[in-house]
Amino acid sequence: MSQYTIGLDYGTNSVRALLVDAADGREAAAAIWGYEHGHQGVVLGRDPNLARQHPGDYLKGAEITIREVLAQAKKTVPGFSPDDVKGIGVDTTGSTPMPVDADGLPLAFDERFADNPAALAWLWKDHTGYAEAGEITALARKMRPQYLAKCGGVYSSEWFFSKILHCLRTAPDVFAAAYTWVELADFVPGALSGTLAPGKFTAGICAAGHKAMYNAAWGGYPDEEFLSALDPKLGGLRERLTKRVRSIDSRAGTLTEEWAAKTGLPAGVPVAVGAFDAHLGAIGAGIGPGTLVKIMGTSTCDITVKGNTEALADVPGLCGIVDGSVLPGFFGLEAGQSAVGDIFNWFVDYIRPGGKEPLSHEQLQREAAALKAGESGLVALDWNNGNRTILVDQRLTGLLVGQTLYTTPAEIYRALIEATAYGALAIINRFEEYGVEIAEIVNCGGIAEKSPLTMQIYADVTGRPMKVSRSAQTPALGAAIAAAVAAGVHKNFAAAQKAMTGLKAQVYAPDAEAHAVYRNLYEIYRTLHDAFGTPSWQGNLYDVMKRLIDIRARVRT
Amino acid sequence: MSQYTIGLDYGTNSVRALLVDAADGREAAAAIWGYEHGHQGVVLGRDPNLARQHPGDYLKGAEITIREVLAQAKKTVPGFSPDDVKGIGVDTTGSTPMPVDADGLPLAFDERFADNPAALAWLWKDHTGYAEAGEITALARKMRPQYLAKCGGVYSSEWFFSKILHCLRTAPDVFAAAYTWVELADFVPGALSGTLAPGKFTAGICAAGHKAMYNAAWGGYPDEEFLSALDPKLGGLRERLTKRVRSIDSRAGTLTEEWAAKTGLPAGVPVAVGAFDAHLGAIGAGIGPGTLVKIMGTSTCDITVKGNTEALADVPGLCGIVDGSVLPGFFGLEAGQSAVGDIFNWFVDYIRPGGKEPLSHEQLQREAAALKAGESGLVALDWNNGNRTILVDQRLTGLLVGQTLYTTPAEIYRALIEATAYGALAIINRFEEYGVEIAEIVNCGGIAEKSPLTMQIYADVTGRPMKVSRSAQTPALGAAIAAAVAAGVHKNFAAAQKAMTGLKAQVYAPDAEAHAVYRNLYEIYRTLHDAFGTPSWQGNLYDVMKRLIDIRARVRT
Repeated sequence: MSQYTIGLDYGTNSVRALLVDAADGREAAAAIWGYEHGHQGVVLGRDPNLARQHPGDYLKGAEITIREVLAQAKKTVPGFSPDDVKGIGVDTTGSTPMPVDADGLPLAFDERFADNPAALAWLWKDHTGYAEAGEITALARKMRPQYLAKCGGVYSSEWFFSKILHCLRTAPDVFAAAYTWVELADFVPGALSGTLAPGKFTAGICAAGHKAMYNAAWGGYPDEEFLSALDPKLGGLRERLTKRVRSIDSRAGTLTEEWAAKTGLPAGVPVAVGAFDAHLGAIGAGIGPGTLVKIMGTSTCDITVKGNTEALADVPGLCGIVDGSVLPGFFGLEAGQSAVGDIFNWFVDYIRPGGKEPLSHEQLQREAAALKAGESGLVALDWNNGNRTILVDQRLTGLLVGQTLYTTPAEIYRALIEATAYGALAIINRFEEYGVEIAEIVNCGGIAEKSPLTMQIYADVTGRPMKVSRSAQTPALGAAIAAAVAAGVHKNFAAAQKAMTGLKAQVYAPDAEAHAVYRNLYEIYRTLHDAFGTPSWQGNLYDVMKRLIDIRARVRT
Repeated sequence: MSQYTIGLDYGTNSVRALLVDAADGREAAAAIWGYEHGHQGVVLGRDPNLARQHPGDYLKGAEITIREVLAQAKKTVPGFSPDDVKGIGVDTTGSTPMPVDADGLPLAFDERFADNPAALAWLWKDHTGYAEAGEITALARKMRPQYLAKCGGVYSSEWFFSKILHCLRTAPDVFAAAYTWVELADFVPGALSGTLAPGKFTAGICAAGHKAMYNAAWGGYPDEEFLSALDPKLGGLRERLTKRVRSIDSRAGTLTEEWAAKTGLPAGVPVAVGAFDAHLGAIGAGIGPGTLVKIMGTSTCDITVKGNTEALADVPGLCGIVDGSVLPGFFGLEAGQSAVGDIFNWFVDYIRPGGKEPLSHEQLQREAAALKAGESGLVALDWNNGNRTILVDQRLTGLLVGQTLYTTPAEIYRALIEATAYGALAIINRFEEYGVEIAEIVNCGGIAEKSPLTMQIYADVTGRPMKVSRSAQTPALGAAIAAAVAAGVHKNFAAAQKAMTGLKAQVYAPDAEAHAVYRNLYEIYRTLHDAFGTPSWQGNLYDVMKRLIDIRARVRT
């Protein structure tokens, strides 16, 4: 009799359930449900920095999609029974924290706050707390530099405490009504297993470590003195943050009777501790020491791991280094590019080149594939949305150099792909400069699936083979793997990954001739990168992008 | 009884005749005729640098367009008679030299060379002599630095001796068969007045001074020793270059009986010495000391004059400083931008933004006009076709910085206009830094006529009012003015210009608020300009564009 697990994958606009055969990772059924609230699931405001979600969507989505995969499997998998489902795993966007009451229930469910966006879940891309992020960074730099050393030197406006502090400042009634705050990645497992209440509640190390400066080395979350220096009320919150912080081989609990009734699953199915989509995506792509997993979408997340008994320097510019955030027993190292597919989408959707028959991504890639490396004479910087790794600077913008009177859209499109490949190489080099060897690169996500040209250019630029994950749904698959481990179906992640993950047959091998050209072009990229991106550079170009942003801001107000 | 003159304006693709009332500059009739040979009048080759024209087109075009304006005027101007035409003036592209025989007739008319493109006229934009241009520059730098000081420090591949030396090297039979070489600007007046033969032939100071290093201060054309050092045969040519070099108040001769019969004009009509379109365009726009005339088209030509009894330093980066090349008694100073309208055309015609309903220049300008200075956060360099003034460097390319994930085509279009305005300001500043005061700016040409937005941005960027010439055909009008002076209808250019030129009523006044923003943006432009355009800059960005061009060239071969 087969054993199955379910991975629940909470994206920005929808939730997906994936029913996976724990023996071989085969995807037996899948269902997707778009959130009901706001615009495509995102509640927006007049402030363009605001992006919230209604927690009700998370619960309704779990119910609908789980029922749907069970119904599908009953039809298509001979002999399938919901009793064959042995575990549930959850991955989500993050940092997406929400205020909850003393029972662990979202304040968004409280009628008093029905119309207050501060009571909703603060979606990862909500940047309303940018001023507070600056404040936290400045204070930590002075008072607790060790906190910043593990998260790239800058505390982001996207993260846990920036959002909570901004709520405290701008919606004090909501802050006051909140017993504590929980991450979406922890809320869903807590809800499914009835462990939302304080004392029973478990937080995942992934969200706590990467977004809330949690580290066992300094006793967990940032200390009360530090938080109180930001605001005494924030200091007061510290003791109400859960002490139970676990990695994903642990269980948050088991499925309640109520959720069993809602979904059609048996009560008591183990529910794994949750983690972020990129981290479980890395697991679904087969991550291990020496393997870099690149989750390639609108932006990228680059993840690798290193044994937690080995020496590891603080790698500057990384988004985070957290023991156990990906695989138990390993440091999880996270880097990323602020925009990859988003840059290509900008060119196609905003510039809309090509005239009456606009050029699609497919056509541009076909034409771009006919060009040789270096043939366009163009080099771009991949900073249209800032630079996450290795510069950790949102106040950077795009740059294109080399255009003539004959430069074509396909040449620019290729230059944009190449720019993101140079950015990817800068990340790989940064890892290796600090002793984190990258022996293999596995790509997953939309671009890895859909753009052979991008994969080939990445191979040619980096001089390394580009492999692609077998699964197109690595986050959900990773969640299902975590479920299989937490439920004891597999004894550990190594065994579960061996059984349940794999690579596509096609490997993109670097072309020696193209790589030789790209070595020259990468030098030029790095010259521009360092000139415009580093304050220590001898020229005065570091100011150029920042001054343009300042002028833009001044003129627009 | 009214007195008229005719301006013949030889462009790249066609010739235009303009019949002008010498009393007030009113344009009584106009005719245009497209050249027959090659592609739109340009004979091309496999080498993309090759661009030639057939001299037969020049003669046929004069005949057809003069007959046509006379026919028109007879119909539309009460009492008009061809006897009322008192003079003919000629402006042409240049440097456009052609080899001629001992009678002054083009070798292209010789059957032996019927199929040899080297015997045609070498159009201004023929760049086949780029290696020879480098050779001439290098030799002059060593042997005759004074030659370069008057032409911006670099002898161009577009110019007279580069083309002749290239012919000598690559088509020695044509070089050997040529008695001498003449510029198109001198060929047409010589043909109309029957003065092509050596001894009778007159060259204009405009072409000789700006393109052939002619200067009375060193005895005319470059000396034989210098030319012989390039090639003894080139040295041998020197004595066969005409000694009669005159400014445009002189006559090349008077209309022959043969041409009178061909055109319907009376024989004996004075024919003025010819000059280049930009220089006569400046006259048609009302140039005088303190006035900068900007001829704004695909590229620009910026011309001013300064009394030739005043002190004048060698202004670095100018295309040329020639006594009498524009107005007799004044130094003619020529600067220019390698691409202006061509950059906007590139964006519209090559990138073709806007999707299914592609954005026209008009739509882009409408949307761009709604933006405030600085609002886009973009700055561009206007170097898609290199930089003529003030850097004199063809090996430069375009640059755009500041783009985000939301940058629109209209924002880029505006940034491109702004970039050309910054380039224009750099030229104005260069003039003034060297004591050539610019008190007034008069624009003419297609962009001045058609793009109020461009004019307004130029006013806002420079902080100076932008005026526009009344005539839309300033080169032909300038040729007609030269005809009026050479014929004695007006006693001098000041009187002729006062009577025959004027400004449009609308003046584009700088907006103080926009100008304040543009002062900041121009600083950023200059930072980029100096970083990428000057070898002495402290960074290493000067190499970036050149290395990209080298890689492109290597990959393409």
